[in-house]
Amino acid sequence: MRGKSLTVLKLGGSVITVKDKTLTPNNSAIRRLAKEIANSGCSPLIIVHGGGSFGHPIAAEYRITEGFKDENQMVGFSKTHNAMVKLNMLIVEALLEEGLPAFSMAPSSLLVTRSGRIQHIYRDPLEQAFKLGFMPVLYGDVVFDYNMGFTVLSGDQILSKLATELGAERIIVGVDVDGLYTADPKINPEAQLITCLTPNELVNLIDKIGGSKSVDVTGSMMGKIRELIVPAMNGVNILIVNALKPNYIYSALRGEEVIGTRIIRG
Amino acid sequence: MRGKSLTVLKLGGSVITVKDKTLTPNNSAIRRLAKEIANSGCSPLIIVHGGGSFGHPIAAEYRITEGFKDENQMVGFSKTHNAMVKLNMLIVEALLEEGLPAFSMAPSSLLVTRSGRIQHIYRDPLEQAFKLGFMPVLYGDVVFDYNMGFTVLSGDQILSKLATELGAERIIVGVDVDGLYTADPKINPEAQLITCLTPNELVNLIDKIGGSKSVDVTGSMMGKIRELIVPAMNGVNILIVNALKPNYIYSALRGEEVIGTRIIRG
Repeated sequence: MRGKSLTVLKLGGSVITVKDKTLTPNNSAIRRLAKEIANSGCSPLIIVHGGGSFGHPIAAEYRITEGFKDENQMVGFSKTHNAMVKLNMLIVEALLEEGLPAFSMAPSSLLVTRSGRIQHIYRDPLEQAFKLGFMPVLYGDVVFDYNMGFTVLSGDQILSKLATELGAERIIVGVDVDGLYTADPKINPEAQLITCLTPNELVNLIDKIGGSKSVDVTGSMMGKIRELIVPAMNGVNILIVNALKPNYIYSALRGEEVIGTRIIRG
Repeated sequence: MRGKSLTVLKLGGSVITVKDKTLTPNNSAIRRLAKEIANSGCSPLIIVHGGGSFGHPIAAEYRITEGFKDENQMVGFSKTHNAMVKLNMLIVEALLEEGLPAFSMAPSSLLVTRSGRIQHIYRDPLEQAFKLGFMPVLYGDVVFDYNMGFTVLSGDQILSKLATELGAERIIVGVDVDGLYTADPKINPEAQLITCLTPNELVNLIDKIGGSKSVDVTGSMMGKIRELIVPAMNGVNILIVNALKPNYIYSALRGEEVIGTRIIRG
């Protein structure tokens, strides 16, 4: 594998889809991001994207995260996957239009989880794709699980696992906010962006949060930063950046100055 | 795995797409076949479908079967896969509409070939899918290859490999003709359907054909029956049947009398 030169880029579901509108892509963001990725010239690159309004509503309706409970969930499991595949096709096609050698890879065919954690990734297709210079594009997916039957696997966990296993140089997490804040910037005018953290500070931050409201790290952002601990501890440089703002992802991929939260070994 | 009770069903690309019309599904055939599969009650079942007018034109344009020669092919490799995924989504959705627990699985993520032959299948997701009672739906795909970089993998080879590895009871091959003939029925009025063959007779038939026109086994049908030798020799019962004729696939799945070519150990 390309080892230290590899970048793994996450495109958040809230960036590439329209929140609260089921199965609605954010086409202008998708086209813009494809151009930014192409213009950056960043290679080798793996892209992992989230589900947003494609994956989550169907997965929730059929309670897929709870695992296999009854046969009525099976159609929902398959429909959630199909919705993610359709979103993935839009991303891959936008990248292909920019001349990038993007290639869709299906997490539910590449790996199996145990109690919701990735147990094993079938790396051969990924390694062959890299050797030829392809840009694999994966996504949060429904997956088979040795204990639960099946479950939902977040793009964040895939990102973290791939970056760690493949010894990536850096992870760039594109979200719909500027990064981690000391408080919720929407309700607290004193909230400040945390521009830099060491891996140890990240762990302390997560420990400290508990039920407190002192740091704006709840819900999906909490899940995201939890997944970042292992790659951060393994020396992968991490940057959380606002992918809704034009050219932020471009600058991040170029390694240029950009507003965001860095998690870097001190 | 379910072993001896497993059926592996091939739906030919010429059945589920409109020949000579690029990217055109045969929607009425797809809907009818989904109903026939549902009505048959056949389980466990794996479905593998071909590419027809979805996969072949793009794969040919970019010379994917020749392997990786230059970077210009990469976009074509990805586009061929995307076209197959779109056809696969139509098949899976038609099956889901009939209430069947169909689930799409991506050959390019599940396996790698060596010089065009399947080297290894990552069986864990397939095995987990079976345990839960899913109906995996695979397809002819572009795949990564250890020697050639990449190539095209026929649905027929996937069918044969899965049936052999999983110890299937039977293979049903749905095509656009009634089976194997002693001559081309379109030009030779004396042509007769071969209703039954042993595995050894199948091998002799293939050996005999060479350049002769005595048996209507050319092009894709030749590729198909070549792939059937290994499972036939391993005791898998094979039936080649016309999937364009209503209820032929239904009867075949039910194990009822139907016109076709059987390959069965004597």
